[in-house]
Amino acid sequence: MRELLRMTTFSKDRQIGRLAIMLLLSEHDQAEQQKMISDLGWLGCTGKVGSMDTNKVVAAIETAAKKNGVIKSDVYRESHALYHAIMEALSGVTRGQVQIGSVLRTVGLSFSILRGNPYESEAEGDWLAVCLYGTIGAPVKGSEHETIGLGINHI
Amino acid sequence: MRELLRMTTFSKDRQIGRLAIMLLLSEHDQAEQQKMISDLGWLGCTGKVGSMDTNKVVAAIETAAKKNGVIKSDVYRESHALYHAIMEALSGVTRGQVQIGSVLRTVGLSFSILRGNPYESEAEGDWLAVCLYGTIGAPVKGSEHETIGLGINHI
Amino acid sequence: MRELLRMTTFSKDRQIGRLAIMLLLSEHDQAEQQKMISDLGWLGCTGKVGSMDTNKVVAAIETAAKKNGVIKSDVYRESHALYHAIMEALSGVTRGQVQIGSVLRTVGLSFSILRGNPYESEAEGDWLAVCLYGTIGAPVKGSEHETIGLGINHI
Amino acid sequence: MRELLRMTTFSKDRQIGRLAIMLLLSEHDQAEQQKMISDLGWLGCTGKVGSMDTNKVVAAIETAAKKNGVIKSDVYRESHALYHAIMEALSGVTRGQVQIGSVLRTVGLSFSILRGNPYESEAEGDWLAVCLYGTIGAPVKGSEHETIGLGINHI
Amino acid sequence: MRELLRMTTFSKDRQIGRLAIMLLLSEHDQAEQQKMISDLGWLGCTGKVGSMDTNKVVAAIETAAKKNGVIKSDVYRESHALYHAIMEALSGVTRGQVQIGSVLRTVGLSFSILRGNPYESEAEGDWLAVCLYGTIGAPVKGSEHETIGLGINHI
Amino acid sequence: MRELLRMTTFSKDRQIGRLAIMLLLSEHDQAEQQKMISDLGWLGCTGKVGSMDTNKVVAAIETAAKKNGVIKSDVYRESHALYHAIMEALSGVTRGQVQIGSVLRTVGLSFSILRGNPYESEAEGDWLAVCLYGTIGAPVKGSEHETIGLGINHI
Repeated sequence: MRELLRMTTFSKDRQIGRLAIMLLLSEHDQAEQQKMISDLGWLGCTGKVGSMDTNKVVAAIETAAKKNGVIKSDVYRESHALYHAIMEALSGVTRGQVQIGSVLRTVGLSFSILRGNPYESEAEGDWLAVCLYGTIGAPVKGSEHETIGLGINHI
Repeated sequence: MRELLRMTTFSKDRQIGRLAIMLLLSEHDQAEQQKMISDLGWLGCTGKVGSMDTNKVVAAIETAAKKNGVIKSDVYRESHALYHAIMEALSGVTRGQVQIGSVLRTVGLSFSILRGNPYESEAEGDWLAVCLYGTIGAPVKGSEHETIGLGINHI
Repeated sequence: MRELLRMTTFSKDRQIGRLAIMLLLSEHDQAEQQKMISDLGWLGCTGKVGSMDTNKVVAAIETAAKKNGVIKSDVYRESHALYHAIMEALSGVTRGQVQIGSVLRTVGLSFSILRGNPYESEAEGDWLAVCLYGTIGAPVKGSEHETIGLGINHI
Repeated sequence: MRELLRMTTFSKDRQIGRLAIMLLLSEHDQAEQQKMISDLGWLGCTGKVGSMDTNKVVAAIETAAKKNGVIKSDVYRESHALYHAIMEALSGVTRGQVQIGSVLRTVGLSFSILRGNPYESEAEGDWLAVCLYGTIGAPVKGSEHETIGLGINHI
Repeated sequence: MRELLRMTTFSKDRQIGRLAIMLLLSEHDQAEQQKMISDLGWLGCTGKVGSMDTNKVVAAIETAAKKNGVIKSDVYRESHALYHAIMEALSGVTRGQVQIGSVLRTVGLSFSILRGNPYESEAEGDWLAVCLYGTIGAPVKGSEHETIGLGINHI
Repeated sequence: MRELLRMTTFSKDRQIGRLAIMLLLSEHDQAEQQKMISDLGWLGCTGKVGSMDTNKVVAAIETAAKKNGVIKSDVYRESHALYHAIMEALSGVTRGQVQIGSVLRTVGLSFSILRGNPYESEAEGDWLAVCLYGTIGAPVKGSEHETIGLGINHI
């Protein structure tokens, strides 16, 4: 396979999307990643949700983010930022219609939420990355394939 | 952060989507991944494309897939399978409207294409995974954030 | 702020969309507006609906239009015109997926429906304007922001 | 027409969406509105754009926001907030596909951009409202009807 | 194959959609169909268009409808009815994004336009059916499959 | 009406989409069509479904395809091919949002499923065509119009 060049468009070692994805997919360096997140002073959590109801997927991620202190429950702007990041991640998962059971399919997802500033300028403040990874398919064991979605928003 | 459980829904070590993603994101084990792909007897390639034109992104991926022998140029069913995998990956990248320059944004993407059977049953035949990872944003240096998309299709 | 120029593209004082919006938003001149509507010989009504179910929003508007004689219940072409005007207004309210509770959000909406000919030529016949204005957000008090939608159709 | 009840869900007199709409539609109280905006310590501007190219509409609004100091040109999070507010407003204008000339139609729009905190809690910080109002239709004089869109985002 | 039951939901022999489709697909009874259309007192025309530009497809259909007197050029409500029927037919053809060349595909289409009252009640007035049938695929000879779309609107 | 030219872009007499449509719409030559399908060595079935639930429409078609042996129940790639063909056909039926009852409408549909190779090259293997034809409208007798959708996929 052809040589692979890495994107280095913005602050190296602070790629919040890449970190959110690797939290879900990497087998080798989870401890290292968690250390990197701590060292950056970032917040984050992971979880799992399986459902045919889109609203249950949204709720599971919102609940995890609030319970783990990634966003403040009583500040609407933080919920608003998270909601749109979730919806964007769901676009990647559902690829077309943001619907699951209503079009007769089901998802089994791991999710990660990260909060921090991926840019070099402090003025950029905190951003949120929501990653969803897992399977989507018919509600029949084995009739499914992988899916991923990533939503990034300022907070 | 809360303990993370891995998805093991289907054939372990053959997660074609996860492998396509890791080809673009992992820093540590690219050689190992390429060996794993070879050992599985799978086909694949990677590349890069930056554009404001959605059709140029599609063309770059199709050209790479054909030039590297991942799909057969003269069999329409293979192009058809790839096209829909690309469109699904673009849904994740664009999160809503599958448009780039026409809504005044630009992308800088790495892409990977893998072909193989991720299932235990031989009857499942070959599948394609197309992963796009990079940045999306205003056509202004630094005004961008990360994005990912994954499309999976039978071939 | 920079001087503001008004649109005068078509029949002045008969801007059916603008009137439908002002019925919901203006505090000062509701009586004046209602007089203007009567003077034009137009039909109209307003109402309110709060729901997580898109179909209940549609039903509330359809019921109001029929009960107030804005459309004829027994002529399908009138229901058809109204339905598409409602769906277009809902596009503005939901901004992407025409979904409410299924993506874990709720709406509290005022609506107005106007029927009349906004054009100078009599041959243009009657048109419908449906305006929805209110709030959309999480099903949590205060976690919401404003939203508007306008659908216009010939009838 | 049936009596009309006003929405009072959040901070009265600070309805940023309603103000953004009234800046474009009200004939009577523009001076009063501008005073209200000044008294609140909010920022804002208005402008006009007519085009068949969606990206030109986006560019016109972004340029106006930056030139009038509504957002800071050199902070990406502010551009990001504005971009998504514009895209949401365009959803209302286009009602379905966020496309203009590519589906053979054209728009003539006034736009307003407001920045301020519409909530009672100071912790909510600044929000942006982008309103677009005007006409959409065939590229033929008079073959058009009104349209509105509103996007609201935290900044 | 299992016995096939016909839909008889509304006025038999006046199924405007079915007739519009059969004008494009039937090999046996075109003369008979044209007689049926004449006997009903309906208007109609057919044509062909091949393009990568969605707006050229729209323009070709609008031009044919006006040149053949199916709609009146100088009455906007008729153009408006036709435009939305075309957009709905294009939804069926494009199945997701109403985009052609911008996502690197091309279409070769026959189209039919019919105008008449398919309902038993005279109060339903005229309706329009726009049918598109042909191929969609890569801009490579033979890399294409069939596609159909039907839009129906009151006029 | 202007002379009508037929599309002959690919293998004549093997137009799988056209045959799937004619199975539902033609009154004259159903026996002839079934003979043509048998002679080609193709598989197929037809059925009917009426519902406000999109997932019930999907389920009815999947069940018919499996019960009639058009696809193999135990091979996921065949279900996957069928699922996407159904979703594409539903795009044509719903023309915008792939939603039925959730936006207060209902469908009464006949469907046909065909499996065979419409191309001259044997390497193209089997393809699936799913056609849906019937009515869509308000859940009120007679408040409906015709609709069609066609999805074609390699299998």
